[in-house]
Amino acid sequence: MATLAFTKGHGTGNDFVVVSDPDGELDLSGDQVAILCDRHFGIGADGLLRVVRSAAIPEGAEAAASGAEWFMDYRNADGSKAEMCGNGTRVFARYLTDTGLADISRGLRIGTRAGVKTLTRSERGFEVDLGEYRIENGDVLVRAKGLPVPRPGVGIDVGNPHVVVALSSDAELEDLDLAYQPVLDPVPAHGANVEFVVPADPLVRDGVGAIRMRVFERGVGETLSCGTGVAAAALAVRHWAGSAAPDVWAVDTTGGTLGVRIADGRVYLSGPASLVFTGEVALA
Amino acid sequence: MATLAFTKGHGTGNDFVVVSDPDGELDLSGDQVAILCDRHFGIGADGLLRVVRSAAIPEGAEAAASGAEWFMDYRNADGSKAEMCGNGTRVFARYLTDTGLADISRGLRIGTRAGVKTLTRSERGFEVDLGEYRIENGDVLVRAKGLPVPRPGVGIDVGNPHVVVALSSDAELEDLDLAYQPVLDPVPAHGANVEFVVPADPLVRDGVGAIRMRVFERGVGETLSCGTGVAAAALAVRHWAGSAAPDVWAVDTTGGTLGVRIADGRVYLSGPASLVFTGEVALA
Repeated sequence: MATLAFTKGHGTGNDFVVVSDPDGELDLSGDQVAILCDRHFGIGADGLLRVVRSAAIPEGAEAAASGAEWFMDYRNADGSKAEMCGNGTRVFARYLTDTGLADISRGLRIGTRAGVKTLTRSERGFEVDLGEYRIENGDVLVRAKGLPVPRPGVGIDVGNPHVVVALSSDAELEDLDLAYQPVLDPVPAHGANVEFVVPADPLVRDGVGAIRMRVFERGVGETLSCGTGVAAAALAVRHWAGSAAPDVWAVDTTGGTLGVRIADGRVYLSGPASLVFTGEVALA
Repeated sequence: MATLAFTKGHGTGNDFVVVSDPDGELDLSGDQVAILCDRHFGIGADGLLRVVRSAAIPEGAEAAASGAEWFMDYRNADGSKAEMCGNGTRVFARYLTDTGLADISRGLRIGTRAGVKTLTRSERGFEVDLGEYRIENGDVLVRAKGLPVPRPGVGIDVGNPHVVVALSSDAELEDLDLAYQPVLDPVPAHGANVEFVVPADPLVRDGVGAIRMRVFERGVGETLSCGTGVAAAALAVRHWAGSAAPDVWAVDTTGGTLGVRIADGRVYLSGPASLVFTGEVALA
């Protein structure tokens, strides 16, 4: 039975098992990832990040060609492959920089299944360029347990699909029962994460817009924090606020505060990333 | 910042951070335990087991005097001190025997806040003598979400209080919504864990009684497995089954199967215990 060395980290409570495999020699099956991510029988995490050189794996060819030395092989807790994870990229950058595998001083490009992402240091920790976004036309009607009447939401695409709904008060946000999946009408083709947001009062202070949110991730349930969901929430409130709205936002999630910055049609997500412990586990 | 070495283990999914502190030098605060047990920001566990020599701590004086070299300082995930944990004792024994700190061949006595417990090897892994039990007089009426009508339950004391309710089918067991706390009438003075059990059909095979159960632990919610609850469940069904009922039981929980044995007015719990990984964490 082989032994696997790993590091456990999180970004605003969104947590990951990080395994170093520079030469792409580690072929973890879906079942192995699922047991490693199991919170009672394994290590426990929302997902697993394999740290592998882009040039070492076929999937990384495009990233390697564009100068991203490292590829983030991101797996969901159920073992399936996933494209991208905003909080995961910061933990990935924290791992690469803390271990000395990469230098971020002039920007760190990492390969993902959703293309190459660039990370930089920021006041909050790390900032990732999530790329271009799209605000969908037409409302989506959202029903949720604890919400007295259905509310209109707006569809936001930031690489993955989101629907953002505005609530009127913190009390309304707390009364939501997200043990139950919100129901969307019309139903998006590939589903969507649903963000419930409460704009702060006043909305803007010192040029920074502020909102609180809770999120229901498709196929997962309520989570402490969803990086792309945070970006979508800020984009939606900025959209509703109109032309005077700021380009910089602070978004309070259940797991902590993240920053969103919008510039030249692109959206940037910033926040903390911590490595919590290192360990060794027998690989079944 | 000090570094803490630890081992993570579980018994039927009831999981623990195990820290070795033979000389009683580690004074973990409630807050430190709570963050270590946090599943997103820490290591993640249902509780923490400190492995300390009975003679090294004032609490262990009685255990030391009666020949129990090791004391299980058990903390709940919220950092509070707890008396006993059936699944925890097996993980504790697994740790002591795998690391060579103790020999179990002639029985292993360990100190707990509920007195000295004796463990032995068993077919299922380890068996712990939970001591004497008491079956309470008079029914307790149990209401639970997903249960069409209230059901009578029986109170069982195995060092801590339980109420056991019989259901008629696996479907009824699955329909229970234990996201909500069951309501007991009358309300027990110190609360109680509530076990919902379905007797197998036939109840007894090759001299072994079989039941399935789910459990709601007071102050915690539904858990994968509760050792003393498993013992209470077997004792209740044996009580209902009358004089022909067997003394040996197999109890299927959500986290796995445990064995219960009743002899000379005492109840014994047996099951597996695994050490999953070792690690090092910075102690804040």
